[in-house]
Amino acid sequence: MILIINCGSSSLKYQLYNPDLTEVVAKGLIARIGENGSYAEHFVGQERLVMRRAIPDHKVGFDVMVDNLLHSELAVIEGPQAITAIGHRAVHGGDIFVESTLVDETVMEQLHACARFAPLHNPCNIAGIEECLRRFPGVPNVVVFDTAFHQSVPREAHVYALPYELYSQWGIRRYGFHGTSCRYVSQAAADILNRPLEDLSMVICHLGNGVTLDAVKAGRSVDTSIGFGTFCGIPMGTRSGDFDPAIIFHLVKERGMSVEEVEALCYEKSGLLGVSGVSNDMREVMERAEAGDDRCALAVDIFVYQIKKTVGAYAAAMDGLDALVFTAGIGENSKEIRSRVCAGLGVLGVRIDERLNSMVRNGHPNISAADMRVATLVVPTDEERMIALDTYRLVSDSIRFPAPITSFAPTYAERV
Amino acid sequence: MILIINCGSSSLKYQLYNPDLTEVVAKGLIARIGENGSYAEHFVGQERLVMRRAIPDHKVGFDVMVDNLLHSELAVIEGPQAITAIGHRAVHGGDIFVESTLVDETVMEQLHACARFAPLHNPCNIAGIEECLRRFPGVPNVVVFDTAFHQSVPREAHVYALPYELYSQWGIRRYGFHGTSCRYVSQAAADILNRPLEDLSMVICHLGNGVTLDAVKAGRSVDTSIGFGTFCGIPMGTRSGDFDPAIIFHLVKERGMSVEEVEALCYEKSGLLGVSGVSNDMREVMERAEAGDDRCALAVDIFVYQIKKTVGAYAAAMDGLDALVFTAGIGENSKEIRSRVCAGLGVLGVRIDERLNSMVRNGHPNISAADMRVATLVVPTDEERMIALDTYRLVSDSIRFPAPITSFAPTYAERV
Repeated sequence: MILIINCGSSSLKYQLYNPDLTEVVAKGLIARIGENGSYAEHFVGQERLVMRRAIPDHKVGFDVMVDNLLHSELAVIEGPQAITAIGHRAVHGGDIFVESTLVDETVMEQLHACARFAPLHNPCNIAGIEECLRRFPGVPNVVVFDTAFHQSVPREAHVYALPYELYSQWGIRRYGFHGTSCRYVSQAAADILNRPLEDLSMVICHLGNGVTLDAVKAGRSVDTSIGFGTFCGIPMGTRSGDFDPAIIFHLVKERGMSVEEVEALCYEKSGLLGVSGVSNDMREVMERAEAGDDRCALAVDIFVYQIKKTVGAYAAAMDGLDALVFTAGIGENSKEIRSRVCAGLGVLGVRIDERLNSMVRNGHPNISAADMRVATLVVPTDEERMIALDTYRLVSDSIRFPAPITSFAPTYAERV
Repeated sequence: MILIINCGSSSLKYQLYNPDLTEVVAKGLIARIGENGSYAEHFVGQERLVMRRAIPDHKVGFDVMVDNLLHSELAVIEGPQAITAIGHRAVHGGDIFVESTLVDETVMEQLHACARFAPLHNPCNIAGIEECLRRFPGVPNVVVFDTAFHQSVPREAHVYALPYELYSQWGIRRYGFHGTSCRYVSQAAADILNRPLEDLSMVICHLGNGVTLDAVKAGRSVDTSIGFGTFCGIPMGTRSGDFDPAIIFHLVKERGMSVEEVEALCYEKSGLLGVSGVSNDMREVMERAEAGDDRCALAVDIFVYQIKKTVGAYAAAMDGLDALVFTAGIGENSKEIRSRVCAGLGVLGVRIDERLNSMVRNGHPNISAADMRVATLVVPTDEERMIALDTYRLVSDSIRFPAPITSFAPTYAERV
């Protein structure tokens, strides 16, 4: 079986896949690690185990995970030998990692080198790998990067017009994020359309807690909305999205703010929360907008407008648009946001059928109006499955079980 | 006659129009005011007067201008009473000035209030108006703002997703620049196409020393590439254009730069100069790129790519594109840049005829390939004429001379 690990700064998520990757055997979340109110959830099918206990660090978090998988009343494996490979999500692969890779000593050193770009996330990812190397000796580990898919973005789109040395010497460039999701979803979209990925120009709208818009041409990411940090591009729950950087100089020089305060403002006090003043949750902001709250209405307007502009920008960048694909929390669940983004994109050949847009949950991924040039799709993302597939592919010499089912088209009956 | 004044931090430009605005009677430049090597140039038709002398401040600059107009060997008027109105270019009208306005005491106070947004430029503009009020008593002064045309940009496009108070209390928003040029050029484009401005969605590419891309729908600016400061949007000679603001935090925290150093870097060491490492002049950068310089090629690639993306974004924002209009130094003179921007914009209905693209100087503003949905035009900008027209309109009760010719279509024989 393949174990997928997503180790964050105060959380540990895991999924255990059966050998042919058709089924998630168990999954779980260890939350608020090192904080008050830490807890663990463990799921097997419809059954759920919840445990509230002190989880002071990731080591204890891994203890809890292993306990849940091996010894709990919802244990699913008899011993660690059942785990034949482990796949890890890693946030930042710098410009070293252009694809998923098997972990060895060199890779660990390179991971440490990339940590300067993601000082919050990468050290946790590294800690997760080290825990696994210790606890499951001999089991191959694979690391899958959120940035790797975007290493194909050409240089006119990934170099900023800043002094060149910032790029060549300090690695300051557009890296992008959510690459694993975008890669999965673009392949799923091609499967749904029953067309070769190589023939398609698409824009993926990964609209979740984090937001990425991604231009995918012939299966390669050619531009992406997140850049060097993780708050730019489209506004998110508390993150600002793009704004004129001159504002930072103004806030520091004219308003006496410190650089740290401005940085916290961009990551934690902006986006939907900053504009609405009440919530970082799109559902709540939309409800209040509906009820007449003007700032909530503005927050949604800005969100939708930035997405529309970026879709247009990427259609121009690719000189074509065959598919517009919505995914992640908001993209999969908000028919209103999909409707508003697509309204007024007729210039690009986009128009959706509102009846189909309301029926996505019944298993109709294609919501385009008849005869429109662009196929508009709703595709559930599944980063863990993408990580599992990469892990299988990279360790397939050493593990002996059936080849995984590699169709990416989601089975809607269960997934949506 | 109408005198047009453009008073910068170390320069004073002027143009004197005949009463019906058909002719520039005289124009001039006082340069390097308060610096070493200051000089004055004064033009009447093909004749030119150059004077090298110390010009320690703007007062002396105005003395020189008046001398040139009234007393030099190229004098064109007999006394100050020949000047019936004065039009001033002002950089920043904040959100107070949504259109050009006659100067009175209230306006002067409001101009001072806007100076916090343009601390380098507005004080000079104000000083210029004060000089004119003193030297030409009783003559009406009109002030024309670079930002005013963009006050029609709707709020989802001018509010950033930062904490709302930055906008509502501190006026931090997208203001835009080059509005006078974009307004002139959009009207000229409608005249050339012989279609009502109200029916047209267009993108103006003002590509000069400063660069603005402007979405103009039904004669109103609905989005524009410059924001709060003046270095964002498309990369310029030494200005960066858009980049991920997180880079500023990285440079300060990880690279030990001061906020002032980073700000100077964005305004003075970036753009074409920063990427190429050799020049802020597009002609030179393109020549070197042609000769094989890789960083020069990259600088041009980034410039072109950002313009293409922005054209696509604005087509989506307007849900339509009827005209793509090139203007200002690079836009009017570089057929290569026009060609490269338009290549691969077929998705928007843009394609140019390369033969026509080479013949612009012979008076063919429309360079579109036959039957393309979008008209691609090359239109010389003329901010001074726009200022003169506004000035005439606002003072026309008090001045008695023929109505100006208001067609904006340039007469190519003389102008291009």
